[in-house]
Amino acid sequence: MSYRIGSGIDFHQLVEDRDLWIGGVRIPHRKGALGHSDADVLLHAVCDALLGALALGDIGVHFPNNDDRFKDIDSKILLRECVRIITDKGYKVVNIDASLCLQEPKIKPYVPQMQEVIASICNIEIEDVSIKATTTEHMGFVGRGEGLTAQAVVLLQKV
Amino acid sequence: MSYRIGSGIDFHQLVEDRDLWIGGVRIPHRKGALGHSDADVLLHAVCDALLGALALGDIGVHFPNNDDRFKDIDSKILLRECVRIITDKGYKVVNIDASLCLQEPKIKPYVPQMQEVIASICNIEIEDVSIKATTTEHMGFVGRGEGLTAQAVVLLQKV
Amino acid sequence: MSYRIGSGIDFHQLVEDRDLWIGGVRIPHRKGALGHSDADVLLHAVCDALLGALALGDIGVHFPNNDDRFKDIDSKILLRECVRIITDKGYKVVNIDASLCLQEPKIKPYVPQMQEVIASICNIEIEDVSIKATTTEHMGFVGRGEGLTAQAVVLLQKV
Ligand SMILES: [Zn+2]
Ligand SMILES: [Zn+2]
Ligand SMILES: [Zn+2]
Repeated sequence: MSYRIGSGIDFHQLVEDRDLWIGGVRIPHRKGALGHSDADVLLHAVCDALLGALALGDIGVHFPNNDDRFKDIDSKILLRECVRIITDKGYKVVNIDASLCLQEPKIKPYVPQMQEVIASICNIEIEDVSIKATTTEHMGFVGRGEGLTAQAVVLLQKV
Repeated sequence: MSYRIGSGIDFHQLVEDRDLWIGGVRIPHRKGALGHSDADVLLHAVCDALLGALALGDIGVHFPNNDDRFKDIDSKILLRECVRIITDKGYKVVNIDASLCLQEPKIKPYVPQMQEVIASICNIEIEDVSIKATTTEHMGFVGRGEGLTAQAVVLLQKV
Repeated sequence: MSYRIGSGIDFHQLVEDRDLWIGGVRIPHRKGALGHSDADVLLHAVCDALLGALALGDIGVHFPNNDDRFKDIDSKILLRECVRIITDKGYKVVNIDASLCLQEPKIKPYVPQMQEVIASICNIEIEDVSIKATTTEHMGFVGRGEGLTAQAVVLLQKV
């Protein structure tokens, strides 16, 4: 059994008049994430971890943020494409562990739905998708509510 | 042999009139870490990595910071509980690699003792627990001494 | 087959009148990274991940930044030494996945050369070395161009 490890990190500003998409779920909040796509920080970190595990570039290489095809795109489509790419290479996802850093809102109520979205796209069980959240205790740009960040690690296995 | 990957990240403010607990060891310093528990940033990152590897929620779900039972609690008790949970699920820890980011004090003299604490609770050898430390070169909230942060990755194996 | 996981994180200030070395490649830029060695943030994160996977201390323990032998040293030499250490312990690198966070310049054109450098030193294929890059969307000290940071995860296997 042959394993590979991957990790991803992503950042987005929080601004007014944008939706807040995290983990494929729209979360009611007075601010949303700024970006060329829907700016889903969690799905982007997972995409990067999947691509990174097989050294296939990063999300900016595959889905350039100056390409009109990806303007306001649903990041679930990007994740689906990343899963297709690693599947084509002969790998499957063993498990995903992601950490969100944001000061507010509380995302705990939305975690089961996020797990379902990601598990479904990655062809794994809900128990193979972990989504954790922490504040930065009011420190730094995340603590001031200027933005949010997500990290993800993945373990892949050769089929 | 079936593996799983986990990762954790934690943040705490550094303030006067608090003890500084890192990796289960009390470190003499003019400031300490602020939090509901003993605010041990390193043990919290390890707890989150263990829980995350099996998608069992995060430290905030298991030990809510508005629950009086966890007020000023020794985080070694929390780590012991996380180890019990993953053991019950049929997994053991292969190795832990943690990174502390703090501007001061130097924690190198305390690393062997931290390794011993964590190895003992996790039922692994000292050689399976890595604790590294770096400053942020005086940048950001860590660099200004306002707080500290820790990250940990773990590899688990099905027993 | 016995696996181990490692992770590393590093930070350097960006200042004038220094070269910018990233991943063993000199990148033309109006600023460079400040440090005792050549301040190669990416190679340092990889070194720490390799050492951390086997709990062998960190880059500061092996190559102290107050030791004249390491003044302005080429970090490729440090990485080579870390690879020698893990090889001596009976381990080889399965794959490396690294993430750079910097606001500018664009490092994409240099990624293939960085992969080649790291793969060659680590005795692995280019397809086993991933280098991803992201900005922090103008947030924090990285976003203001004051510094840059890198993270790396590695998977090692007992030979
Ligand atoms: Zn993004
Ligand atoms: Zn904590
Ligand atoms: Zn460095």
